[in-house]
Amino acid sequence: MPQTLTAPFTTLSHPSISAPKGFHADGQHVGLKHKAKDLGWLISDVPAAVAGVFTTNQVQAAPVQVTKQTIQNGQLQAIIVNSGNANAVTGQIGLTHAKMMQTTTADKLGIAPNLVGVASTGVIGQILPIDTVTAGIHQLQHDGDPQGFAHAIMTTDTNEKAVTIQGTIAGKRVTMSGVAKGSGMIHPNMATMLGFITTDANITSSLLQQALSEDVETSFNQITIDGDTSTNDMVLVMANGQADNPLIAQDDAVYEQFKAMLHHVTTTLAIAIANDGEGATKLITVTVSHAQSATAARLIAKKVVGSSLVKTAMFGKDPNWGRIIAAIGAAETAISPDTIAISINDYPVMQAGAPVAFNQTALANSLEDPHITIQIDLNNGAATGQAWGSDLTYDYVKINALYTT
Amino acid sequence: MPQTLTAPFTTLSHPSISAPKGFHADGQHVGLKHKAKDLGWLISDVPAAVAGVFTTNQVQAAPVQVTKQTIQNGQLQAIIVNSGNANAVTGQIGLTHAKMMQTTTADKLGIAPNLVGVASTGVIGQILPIDTVTAGIHQLQHDGDPQGFAHAIMTTDTNEKAVTIQGTIAGKRVTMSGVAKGSGMIHPNMATMLGFITTDANITSSLLQQALSEDVETSFNQITIDGDTSTNDMVLVMANGQADNPLIAQDDAVYEQFKAMLHHVTTTLAIAIANDGEGATKLITVTVSHAQSATAARLIAKKVVGSSLVKTAMFGKDPNWGRIIAAIGAAETAISPDTIAISINDYPVMQAGAPVAFNQTALANSLEDPHITIQIDLNNGAATGQAWGSDLTYDYVKINALYTT
Repeated sequence: MPQTLTAPFTTLSHPSISAPKGFHADGQHVGLKHKAKDLGWLISDVPAAVAGVFTTNQVQAAPVQVTKQTIQNGQLQAIIVNSGNANAVTGQIGLTHAKMMQTTTADKLGIAPNLVGVASTGVIGQILPIDTVTAGIHQLQHDGDPQGFAHAIMTTDTNEKAVTIQGTIAGKRVTMSGVAKGSGMIHPNMATMLGFITTDANITSSLLQQALSEDVETSFNQITIDGDTSTNDMVLVMANGQADNPLIAQDDAVYEQFKAMLHHVTTTLAIAIANDGEGATKLITVTVSHAQSATAARLIAKKVVGSSLVKTAMFGKDPNWGRIIAAIGAAETAISPDTIAISINDYPVMQAGAPVAFNQTALANSLEDPHITIQIDLNNGAATGQAWGSDLTYDYVKINALYTT
Repeated sequence: MPQTLTAPFTTLSHPSISAPKGFHADGQHVGLKHKAKDLGWLISDVPAAVAGVFTTNQVQAAPVQVTKQTIQNGQLQAIIVNSGNANAVTGQIGLTHAKMMQTTTADKLGIAPNLVGVASTGVIGQILPIDTVTAGIHQLQHDGDPQGFAHAIMTTDTNEKAVTIQGTIAGKRVTMSGVAKGSGMIHPNMATMLGFITTDANITSSLLQQALSEDVETSFNQITIDGDTSTNDMVLVMANGQADNPLIAQDDAVYEQFKAMLHHVTTTLAIAIANDGEGATKLITVTVSHAQSATAARLIAKKVVGSSLVKTAMFGKDPNWGRIIAAIGAAETAISPDTIAISINDYPVMQAGAPVAFNQTALANSLEDPHITIQIDLNNGAATGQAWGSDLTYDYVKINALYTT
């Protein structure tokens, strides 16, 4: 997987969401899906500072509504997650079920319900089989299988997405882990995506929220699979302070170190999600340089990586750069076509608004690679932005034509 | 094809773009494509009032730039159109080529160049073989084959799109015809779509422009195939006054009659384009009712019909209405999930924000039909809006993965 950052921390070869001190996790099959794991939890020994970002879809699933409310107090000690059913558009009973997930978990762990976050993913509009879920909660182990947790949150994902890094903050070793699920419906602003990040860093919840809110603009919000947005997405970060570093309480150099670690975790997970788009055969990275603002650069990068015509061309190994410039022109930010240069896999194809002769065969051959890069130089400023996506394939159609029935 | 309007006019069973008095057309194969027709023209005996709408993409093809400028004077007597090459992103030489198409046509017809509109469609970023085009212009016949014109503008379209209607305006018989090409890249604001409308009505160019600009908001701008926008789209209307009705020069009842005819032609063409989306097996019509404004209703209708997940579900005959409500929630206009009711093919599936029990088998069987309707009742106002699109299929991916190479 391509790395976008190097930093003074190491990546563990066996990631685990419970690697940071004082965390525990489990994931099991309890009967919401046919066979696969479908219920998991994350537990901290002590209440942790929490931060969250949630879907911008106006239709918000019951667990999103409950968890948004729950984390207002800035603390969380556990998260319960199910897959196989989104508990979305399920009316008042859906809210009751989300709260039952919360209270059953709290009772089992002997903690207050307002320290428990709830998340769900799966089919929308079907009533959650709550008895299966509550019975399942009683099956979960305190010191269970952290890889099982990473599996229990998956839907059409073909692989688990997990990362663990370690660094030193103010002389103390700090560990940070993340797991995520993605696949279809990944687009602007947290679309059908769940992400859970644990760290033993010691940081205030307000700075943790500031770090996460800023970070998602360049990580999770810059991936797109199919342009749809979901009812259920959330990313939660728990920081339980067990690393014993001095409390990070202001926006200083130590905070920047923490943010670099967070960015590495979020970007790694985001790219893993883009790489595992439904039916995808290729990861596409679009880099926009020399833009007038970072916002404009990100908007254009995402427009290009989200274009169905660009995505099908990359699947077909077709260096049809006209579709790239058409997507740039359709972005909701001003551009000057006459200054733009485009390269695909480092082959220049367009410069100053006109075609450049290129070796068609060599470029087409390079598109066999499972990782394609598109470089767009706007020659119009100093800002840069990136976005990640996948190609659009027969299998995307197959997976999505057959999902519920 | 579903009709959305009944009106005091008749639809001719053999449509022809040269049916209105004083119009002539031809279309031939001149060598831009391998075999199919690729160059055509439309001619009026006298200069006609003209109106045009053009792509909102910031990257505009040379013919778009030239024709926008040309119709500033409010008159046009001929239109020359090629397929097989978009003459887009071709730099200064592209502009020169578009002007050569204009002057060669004007010379051949013995009229002023500023009475000739130019349009192109096809692959972006390849230099137009201008010698082939200018030689081709000399092959075209004054009284040629109007069906050939409808074919000459096609790209990946599987059928010609043409309509002719006749009505009576102020005691005179008025004829109006339209042809269009669409297929992929059809989305907001004139994306890779060409439309040409001829009428012998007598109307000022300013009212003609007003009528067209208003109309496209509910017709051509309400169809979507894949969410991409193009560099080349335009719709031109020529009204040559040969029907001899008293000049329509103010916004009165007679003008409304003219607008009803125009709306029938544009909507018929728009639905024909949606129905022939690349790889499409089904036409999807989304109707949003009881919205707070017509703009909001149209925005929501288009968001739903443009959702990849809704489109693949309809291809898979899967009544997965959760994807419909998720798309509604993602629309850039405020909604109240708790009041929304959704029906698919007249089967209620959601009411007041919660699921409704429905006959899964009967509804799934009804999705075999090549025309699917989705009704969304917002229960929140008095306005209505519609949008049309197609399903997303294996063949869409196939067509677009193999387009240039």
